[in-house]
Amino acid sequence: MQEMSQLHAIFSRTRGYIDRFAEIIQPIIDAAQDEHTRLYYHHILEEEEQRLGRLQELIPYIGSLDEAKKAEQLSDRELSRLLSDINLERFGLHNFREHLELSLYEFKDEETRQLLNSMRESTQEDYLRVKEIMAALSERFSDVHRPDLTDHDEGYDIHQVDHLKASSSPAVANTGKTAAAPAAKTGRKGLTVGSLKGMF
Amino acid sequence: MQEMSQLHAIFSRTRGYIDRFAEIIQPIIDAAQDEHTRLYYHHILEEEEQRLGRLQELIPYIGSLDEAKKAEQLSDRELSRLLSDINLERFGLHNFREHLELSLYEFKDEETRQLLNSMRESTQEDYLRVKEIMAALSERFSDVHRPDLTDHDEGYDIHQVDHLKASSSPAVANTGKTAAAPAAKTGRKGLTVGSLKGMF
Repeated sequence: MQEMSQLHAIFSRTRGYIDRFAEIIQPIIDAAQDEHTRLYYHHILEEEEQRLGRLQELIPYIGSLDEAKKAEQLSDRELSRLLSDINLERFGLHNFREHLELSLYEFKDEETRQLLNSMRESTQEDYLRVKEIMAALSERFSDVHRPDLTDHDEGYDIHQVDHLKASSSPAVANTGKTAAAPAAKTGRKGLTVGSLKGMF
Repeated sequence: MQEMSQLHAIFSRTRGYIDRFAEIIQPIIDAAQDEHTRLYYHHILEEEEQRLGRLQELIPYIGSLDEAKKAEQLSDRELSRLLSDINLERFGLHNFREHLELSLYEFKDEETRQLLNSMRESTQEDYLRVKEIMAALSERFSDVHRPDLTDHDEGYDIHQVDHLKASSSPAVANTGKTAAAPAAKTGRKGLTVGSLKGMF
């Protein structure tokens, strides 16, 4: 199945990116002058380690399905589980894109910024491609429980921002310790438990 | 099975916490004066929404296992899958703890800080309890593939920091735009693909 081959390539590529990303971020952690900065980048890297751990299991499995042409013979339950696993990595790609974008605000040297941005653009393409593949797989196996494939970016203006440009502005502010808004109980948008369906 | 009842309580509690956390963070996003701050808190909240989506499926499933005493009759494959799902939420609890800790650095008012910290302490207890439950379940069903239960905190000094105290210090620096370390290819610690086993 062609899709398995494509998924294998995408997940192998992002696995390599995690390694390059860690090479860029680890020195920031090592040189951090305060606990907040250390915690912030440690946290991002830890989440990528968790994703790497999942990919280390998923990539060989997808590879075995591809090589032996076994994907067509999966039971409904196996296919449903596979779609669920792929969906988790779809979110993983989306979150990685944001980790890359957040990191753009840390660096001033063009070489690092270009590397982060090229990984960001490639990751976004892979994210969209995974969405298409999942739609095709769900379509073909219509009996299987289909994950909600609503574009993760929908309804969030922040995803339309050019963070390469925004992060190069000298007026860029820091994260944390901003003019703290009150922890009001009002003003939330669509984040009640009941209203989350279809948000992502 | 007593464990199912405990897991149901833990995951229900953290589901409620996500809602309270969103109430605290959404106003920060709405009031953000720059794209970096908006992206940062949007990203944290989006990851919690993803976790909420998973919990919305897992909680009723665990509840059904608990009510019908069906956990003992799961097949090896079903149990293995259940352990894998629980393990993902174990990471989710750990990451939520860090989201709470990162947010401590945003707020100065005691009421919000105490709420964040109490959720942080409770979340850490729940994280450790889930680890114990997984060990017990793996022990009982010895044929099943066991997830690596190494404490996620091991080897990371950052988890030993008292972030409630650190975040109250006036010397706390911002995240991002710190004294940027060079993106050196050296100085990384244990983050090669091959060395990740047992890190978490």
